[in-house]
Amino acid sequence: MIIVGELINASRKKIKEAIEKKDADYIKEIAINQDKAGASYVDVNAGVFVGQEPEYLVWLVETVQSVVDKPLALDSPDPKAIEAAMKVHKGTPMLNSISMEKDRWAKLSPVIANTDIKVVSLCMSDAGMPTTAVDRVKIAGDLVDGLTKINIPLENIYIDPLVQPVGTDYTFGIEFLKAVTQIKEKFAGVHIMCGLSNISFGLPERKFLNRIFMGQAIMAGLDGAIIDPLDNAMMGTIAGAVALIGKDKGCRGYLKAFRAGLVKA
Amino acid sequence: MIIVGELINASRKKIKEAIEKKDADYIKEIAINQDKAGASYVDVNAGVFVGQEPEYLVWLVETVQSVVDKPLALDSPDPKAIEAAMKVHKGTPMLNSISMEKDRWAKLSPVIANTDIKVVSLCMSDAGMPTTAVDRVKIAGDLVDGLTKINIPLENIYIDPLVQPVGTDYTFGIEFLKAVTQIKEKFAGVHIMCGLSNISFGLPERKFLNRIFMGQAIMAGLDGAIIDPLDNAMMGTIAGAVALIGKDKGCRGYLKAFRAGLVKA
Repeated sequence: MIIVGELINASRKKIKEAIEKKDADYIKEIAINQDKAGASYVDVNAGVFVGQEPEYLVWLVETVQSVVDKPLALDSPDPKAIEAAMKVHKGTPMLNSISMEKDRWAKLSPVIANTDIKVVSLCMSDAGMPTTAVDRVKIAGDLVDGLTKINIPLENIYIDPLVQPVGTDYTFGIEFLKAVTQIKEKFAGVHIMCGLSNISFGLPERKFLNRIFMGQAIMAGLDGAIIDPLDNAMMGTIAGAVALIGKDKGCRGYLKAFRAGLVKA
Repeated sequence: MIIVGELINASRKKIKEAIEKKDADYIKEIAINQDKAGASYVDVNAGVFVGQEPEYLVWLVETVQSVVDKPLALDSPDPKAIEAAMKVHKGTPMLNSISMEKDRWAKLSPVIANTDIKVVSLCMSDAGMPTTAVDRVKIAGDLVDGLTKINIPLENIYIDPLVQPVGTDYTFGIEFLKAVTQIKEKFAGVHIMCGLSNISFGLPERKFLNRIFMGQAIMAGLDGAIIDPLDNAMMGTIAGAVALIGKDKGCRGYLKAFRAGLVKA
């Protein structure tokens, strides 16, 4: 599983304050913690700073990469911020994210064309968020078409089918899960990634539900997640789910998670 | 989900002692607790008492049904015990279980032929326990053929594909899950039921792993489980998993489980 650590996001109050104060130590600490907990990518987001986003995103990239030897997920819809961040980023970053919304596509696609960047690609168009598996697969097809045309190889595409709350409509969980399986089957080579906590929006004991859904999504074919890697129970659940679907020889990953204290019955 | 409460089993020391002493109060208490916790069937097993099994199983049926208004799962491979228990059982019981092992089939099939009993049917033959989905689907086909020939309707057949430990072979989880989906697709109308704790045999924090697997098995098509209904976290997981796959309108079952204290993040 590809884990994108979501914690360095300016929509979180403490992160916003740290960015404003240029408190590099705090950002470094959060970055190191996510790295140690097993993040494959560290997400960086300075989205709340209108006008200053390119500058702040560059600062975040440089600050995080001064202590963490991992690629980052550059989290912005702003082409200027992405372009600036890509210039200072060491190694191959991830873009979080493009979509089929015309404006977003038009602005971001020239920035990433002909690069080796990994691209989180939201199943979203100007028609809004899809609710059925069929609609998700259709938009995923448009994303794959568009991205391959600008020379992004299939293996660098990370489709996010967009989780919607099962509390809003009881079919939203299964339609997402079906979409994961169908996109994986139809576009062999692409990855499927998502932030999945939205599934439990409006319901009690959200983390409980999120973990069950993670197990199901991994079974459906999910191979990446944008999550809090410091959430031990979730990280343990991922290790368990991967072992249960035959992708963990000798259950080594699960046993490692157990020894790290992530697995508690 | 069809929940078969597994606790009244003579292989458990306290139950064995209670049966020996004819301690009806203890058996009644365990039966009532399972009933209240949401068991659809209460399993009764007196298998350790060689020679006295029919007598003890009859006593268990009468004792449990004196306080619980639910059908029982008659848990024995002994045709004499099953026949005697069926005679005193009120309503439609469940047989736990038949298999394609020649001896077991020959002894049990005449007892259940042309009745309306529900039949847990193990994917097991004299060739041993199957390890692949393909082998399970084949034995399931033999079970469905054999049972329909003795006038057991499809909807009374509960195929148990038999969970084997993922710690023994890392493909055992996914092969089981595939079998669930394939059997459900191929033999429309049959149910799929299992006792699934065997999945985690030999691994640490078994309950943690069992819950993730339950969520995945329900997604694969499992619609029954032989479990401890007093295991709140497992019962909450079942409610959550059912809601997440679009089988719980308005998430009412999940919210009910939450209010009952079964759901804790």
